[in-house]
Amino acid sequence: MSTIAHVAARAGVSKATASRALSGGGYVSADTRERVRAAAKELAYVAHSSAMSLATGRSLSVGVIMPSLHRWFFAELLSGIQEGLLASGHDLVLYGMREGSAERTKLFEQVLPRRRLDGIIAVGIQPSAHELERLRRVDSPLVTIGAYSEGSSAVSIDDEAAGRIATEHLIDLGHQRIAFLGGRPDAATHAYGDGRRLAGYRAAMVAAGLEEQSRHETGGVTMPDGYESGVRMLGDRQRRPTAIVAVCDEVAVGAIIAARRMGLAVPSQLSVVGVDDHENAEMFSLTTVRQSPRAQGVAAVEVLRDRMDAPDAPLARRVLLSELVVRSSTAAPR
Amino acid sequence: MSTIAHVAARAGVSKATASRALSGGGYVSADTRERVRAAAKELAYVAHSSAMSLATGRSLSVGVIMPSLHRWFFAELLSGIQEGLLASGHDLVLYGMREGSAERTKLFEQVLPRRRLDGIIAVGIQPSAHELERLRRVDSPLVTIGAYSEGSSAVSIDDEAAGRIATEHLIDLGHQRIAFLGGRPDAATHAYGDGRRLAGYRAAMVAAGLEEQSRHETGGVTMPDGYESGVRMLGDRQRRPTAIVAVCDEVAVGAIIAARRMGLAVPSQLSVVGVDDHENAEMFSLTTVRQSPRAQGVAAVEVLRDRMDAPDAPLARRVLLSELVVRSSTAAPR
Repeated sequence: MSTIAHVAARAGVSKATASRALSGGGYVSADTRERVRAAAKELAYVAHSSAMSLATGRSLSVGVIMPSLHRWFFAELLSGIQEGLLASGHDLVLYGMREGSAERTKLFEQVLPRRRLDGIIAVGIQPSAHELERLRRVDSPLVTIGAYSEGSSAVSIDDEAAGRIATEHLIDLGHQRIAFLGGRPDAATHAYGDGRRLAGYRAAMVAAGLEEQSRHETGGVTMPDGYESGVRMLGDRQRRPTAIVAVCDEVAVGAIIAARRMGLAVPSQLSVVGVDDHENAEMFSLTTVRQSPRAQGVAAVEVLRDRMDAPDAPLARRVLLSELVVRSSTAAPR
Repeated sequence: MSTIAHVAARAGVSKATASRALSGGGYVSADTRERVRAAAKELAYVAHSSAMSLATGRSLSVGVIMPSLHRWFFAELLSGIQEGLLASGHDLVLYGMREGSAERTKLFEQVLPRRRLDGIIAVGIQPSAHELERLRRVDSPLVTIGAYSEGSSAVSIDDEAAGRIATEHLIDLGHQRIAFLGGRPDAATHAYGDGRRLAGYRAAMVAAGLEEQSRHETGGVTMPDGYESGVRMLGDRQRRPTAIVAVCDEVAVGAIIAARRMGLAVPSQLSVVGVDDHENAEMFSLTTVRQSPRAQGVAAVEVLRDRMDAPDAPLARRVLLSELVVRSSTAAPR
């Protein structure tokens, strides 16, 4: 196989110039670039990324750290990141590992420091002080998606606004006994949106003078979780709410199915609103606050590319807007 | 930063030996390995993968080609592959792109030939003659997951058996009017299991003398798709089946919801069986043929590592077994 040295000799330039011309990194005149490309074509030269990486200092790889791969939000996000990175010609190196796992420790201690990455996108991370220190030592441009932003550029939706918008919709319809369903009590300490959505719900209840009616039924974030906590909450006839703000659409759908099995009509006896606009939302006529994780993934790549071009520019924070999508799972209380 | 040359000099060995000792690739005596590691530690040497790749010819990266990232099957599979690669110390380079897309063409024409990968795992691929030729030219060990196997090692479940097991369960219960729901008419030409599950259904119907009763209601593979094609099929009272084999659990759940909304009781008026054992299956008491995409991902990495160790060994084919999980969505017809 031809080496970069052969290509350089044929084009009459240095190896470094030939490498720059082929990788697109750094300045090369249009004329030289053309000559090098022609030489490479004649020699059927295919650059190997390892050699190119040493010559240019760039790996054309971006690391993506994710806590989970199999929830709707993360999978859509990953699709958006993939789309953005394909367009910019970067490989996506995936590190899907849970917080607190042995693999995660290994990632920060051993893998990242050795890997030459042009940038890192970290999703739903609340870096412990130690993880943050490690990420800084790696010294690659960094963008986080989700809550965490101190010391990194970040992309997210305004989760607190999403919780508030959903709650205000129910208050506007005339509901007072409105419960928040799903998410853990300690969610505020996590980097996910759960805690902030709950905070938005509480702020709206307080603003409407409904603080006394506030109620959080904790639970997981899947459809079966929503079904289970829905059954638990709706089973108590005395304290049954007239409306539910679900932490996400999957929990909202689980609650709707629970209500139906218990003989409660949605929306006449129970209104339900979610956050996401999940692919199953329309089938259940779910009123929801829409977000696009795919768009967040694309935006994260844009912010990262800006940082690659200007590593010393001020940190950037991109907040994507959400909108209320009214379907027929919500109505005025009877 | 210290280079491999500094480490080699300190340990009194060649650069190549130092590199082998640190990467774990190739033979180095235990004594030498220890000496090199101590030197690296003293010099706070962190190997960069690009330099290591050139020195050892290995990139410690495995490419994963997937048509989709956001369906249950693919996300679970990706988790399994990630788990396997983390254990073996390989980076996962993700190429998530649909068949027929411009990105996909670019992947095979430009990206893969330049990338030094220790192996490739290709999921749900039906390589066109051209893609296959390209993959062979890349000359990395290759494992496919799903139907395609000619010219590569492969991992899959026996989708035809899954379709047959589901159908035989309904026949054993006494059903005759059994329909197959979901999947496209041209599914047999794709690399996914749809077509083979349908073939298994047909084989079971023929074996039971029920060929005349065979019926395929085509549709997509999501829960809303199953709901839609379920409504279409169940709406025709004259031709209504007493039992459904769904192409996957998401379609089965959609059909159950459709039946309920039309006032049909499951299982007394309609039996439904799926394939997958999806995370939502239990919530709907769904009888299903279980598969574990996560286990398929882990197995694919095992098969790939065998090929890396012995590239000239005969191609391997690993078929994972499925099992019928009986819950309460199936019963004898009234």
